[in-house]
Amino acid sequence: MSVGERESTHGDRDHVQSLERGIAVLLAFDEEHPEPTLAELSRITGFSRPAVRRFLITLERMGYVRGHDGRWSLTPRVLSIGQHYTASHALIEVSQPHLLRLAEETHESASLATLDGDDAVYVARVPVRRIMSINVSVGTRVPAYATSMGRVLLAWAPTPVVDSVLHRRPLRAITPSTVTDPSALRAELARVREQGWAVVAEELEAGLLSASAPVRDRSGQVVAALASSTSVGRSSRGELQRRVVPLLLETAARITAEFGGRA
Amino acid sequence: MSVGERESTHGDRDHVQSLERGIAVLLAFDEEHPEPTLAELSRITGFSRPAVRRFLITLERMGYVRGHDGRWSLTPRVLSIGQHYTASHALIEVSQPHLLRLAEETHESASLATLDGDDAVYVARVPVRRIMSINVSVGTRVPAYATSMGRVLLAWAPTPVVDSVLHRRPLRAITPSTVTDPSALRAELARVREQGWAVVAEELEAGLLSASAPVRDRSGQVVAALASSTSVGRSSRGELQRRVVPLLLETAARITAEFGGRA
Repeated sequence: MSVGERESTHGDRDHVQSLERGIAVLLAFDEEHPEPTLAELSRITGFSRPAVRRFLITLERMGYVRGHDGRWSLTPRVLSIGQHYTASHALIEVSQPHLLRLAEETHESASLATLDGDDAVYVARVPVRRIMSINVSVGTRVPAYATSMGRVLLAWAPTPVVDSVLHRRPLRAITPSTVTDPSALRAELARVREQGWAVVAEELEAGLLSASAPVRDRSGQVVAALASSTSVGRSSRGELQRRVVPLLLETAARITAEFGGRA
Repeated sequence: MSVGERESTHGDRDHVQSLERGIAVLLAFDEEHPEPTLAELSRITGFSRPAVRRFLITLERMGYVRGHDGRWSLTPRVLSIGQHYTASHALIEVSQPHLLRLAEETHESASLATLDGDDAVYVARVPVRRIMSINVSVGTRVPAYATSMGRVLLAWAPTPVVDSVLHRRPLRAITPSTVTDPSALRAELARVREQGWAVVAEELEAGLLSASAPVRDRSGQVVAALASSTSVGRSSRGELQRRVVPLLLETAARITAEFGGRA
């Protein structure tokens, strides 16, 4: 039986199961399984070995995986897929020089994030030093409710989006400081909207401080959050507010002007 | 007719056509077509509208695209696909702090690249300023023969790989300085191998200078090139050689020691 013959077993004629499954094979490669065998990929994905084999052969022809001595690995061509997101979002290219300048002025990492579901996703970043225990890169997702970027994105998000993030499931206390009460978060979002920026201290990770300001499109809609992050050893909430927030607002306004001015 | 029924028309039972086509739809979004309609996607990919529609519905359910007012756009979840490459290559995480330090010491952008086909692909990067006309990010591909990173990767590459890059098709003079003669390039690669580093001036872009050194795995094989890039206005070939090459060699040795030492 060919992979194709199973297309409609998903119970929906509009769902292309082999596309979903093929991408699942690509995503089965990770830190734990950097060079899996066909048998391992079959176990991870739950697909039959013959099916996994056909996906691998297809992905190999497309240049995304490489086989060697019975083991498979991803090629750097996989990185190109994400570049199509970057290329199709002009805001990211517009922001790049501004992020570099902000990082230079603050001597701290500068980031741009957008909202995707419950998460703030880093879409551009100029790292200056590593301050989080996780390795942040473009594509890294962090819970919106516990980060300054997420608070900025939620502060101006439509009500149904905010409701979904705050109420779809109980919010987890990631650190002892994480605000998890939906009413308290709503009050915090109202404050962010009023003051025009957010500072969040140690709600995502002990020692991590960050400040964020909104970037808007030409219609005035908030489309991204600009952020600067540092650590308690190097700065404080007050210093961030005095020294970094004005730079963030200025930089966000510049990006907004440049992005909003584009055809 | 469902997409699945066409699986075997590629003339090869092992090729999963709907996986290849679904990814082609994802790659059809770019700078020129950031928010295409279904009709535009059908025209770009050459697939029928009903087929494109099924791919879009599947990709939307997976969270990779979003439909709004008859137009489609990529979501930042697309960026996660590339992260699986990064996560499955420990070298990249190992390199990150070293790239940051190198960028800090040199005040120039620091990069790590690997060879993929004819190209050097940026797999990690700490930008300090933008010096190339193209927007370099992780995933960006540059012709190996015309860059210091590519020369380092080719200098220690197996002969068939070098033969393929130098002879599969005529090399193009990207700038007036680009070395395109295969024999001259072979002599250059021998020099790089002997001296242990490469400096390339203005062969990829006018004004662009870069230096590179090899990073090895525990078996001694060159697996990546570490690079620092600057511009003729800020430095010179001689200064790069005196000031930056020693730092590159030192940093590459540190990454090699740390990466080679991993289980």
